Amino acid sequence: MNDSDRFMKEALKQANKAYDKGEVPIGAIVVKDGKIISRAYNKRETEMKATSHAEIIAIEKACKKLNNWRLNDCDLYVTLEPCPMCAGAILNSRIKNLYFGAYDKKSGAIVSNLNMLDYEFCNHRTNYESEIMKIECEKIIKDFFKELRK
Amino acid sequence: MNDSDRFMKEALKQANKAYDKGEVPIGAIVVKDGKIISRAYNKRETEMKATSHAEIIAIEKACKKLNNWRLNDCDLYVTLEPCPMCAGAILNSRIKNLYFGAYDKKSGAIVSNLNMLDYEFCNHRTNYESEIMKIECEKIIKDFFKELRK
Repeated sequence: MNDSDRFMKEALKQANKAYDKGEVPIGAIVVKDGKIISRAYNKRETEMKATSHAEIIAIEKACKKLNNWRLNDCDLYVTLEPCPMCAGAILNSRIKNLYFGAYDKKSGAIVSNLNMLDYEFCNHRTNYESEIMKIECEKIIKDFFKELRK
Repeated sequence: MNDSDRFMKEALKQANKAYDKGEVPIGAIVVKDGKIISRAYNKRETEMKATSHAEIIAIEKACKKLNNWRLNDCDLYVTLEPCPMCAGAILNSRIKNLYFGAYDKKSGAIVSNLNMLDYEFCNHRTNYESEIMKIECEKIIKDFFKELRK
């Protein structure tokens, strides 16, 4: 198993925690120097907070850990393509590399609806790679909504 | 003084608090049924958190107050045009109306660089109005950076 699969597996574990709590199952982790420095999952319903997406919480925890709002040497792994808010937070925190699993046709802002990390006006460049453990990342979301419709 | 000027003046008071703490002076408030339900200012340096923009903090406080991640009947007043992250948070929290003062040519995502509130793919529509107390909102930012360069 390569590094990006290994880290995405940890993000998937977080997504599973969200699943168990009835939250849309999305998980994220922040990695620095090959080590996980924060883990988070979507808590929008639990916290009743519009900003409590997995990526935002993972970024905030990483800032706290490093006591720095700049996460220049950090990578973010997230099971689902980030929304506009989270893509903006990735840029604002200067994340180096974004790795995501499944595409979000509805709200994805990296490739699906917008290309938030490719705009010239942003003064930071975050590289990104998609389809990391895509099948597993798609499955957990599909399973969740299938069960929800029952 | 009309309502939007009156509320923007309150947002400006918040921006002044940021100014006094050496933060880029941006202030925001959330209004529901004609009443201010949250007030916030930019705390990025104080909190060392990439997400601590005035709008995000104001939205989070409003969610907490209403115990709801949906702010459907709420308006957000902010002294400066929101960045992509904050524009995304405005959509995610379903803010009804956004009022902002000055344009942010560098990072603004409402009209200056992106049109985040106009995209068809978003499942929520937030109306917006700009140039509320524009001169005052521009002045505080200009004064801050003028002093910083000294």
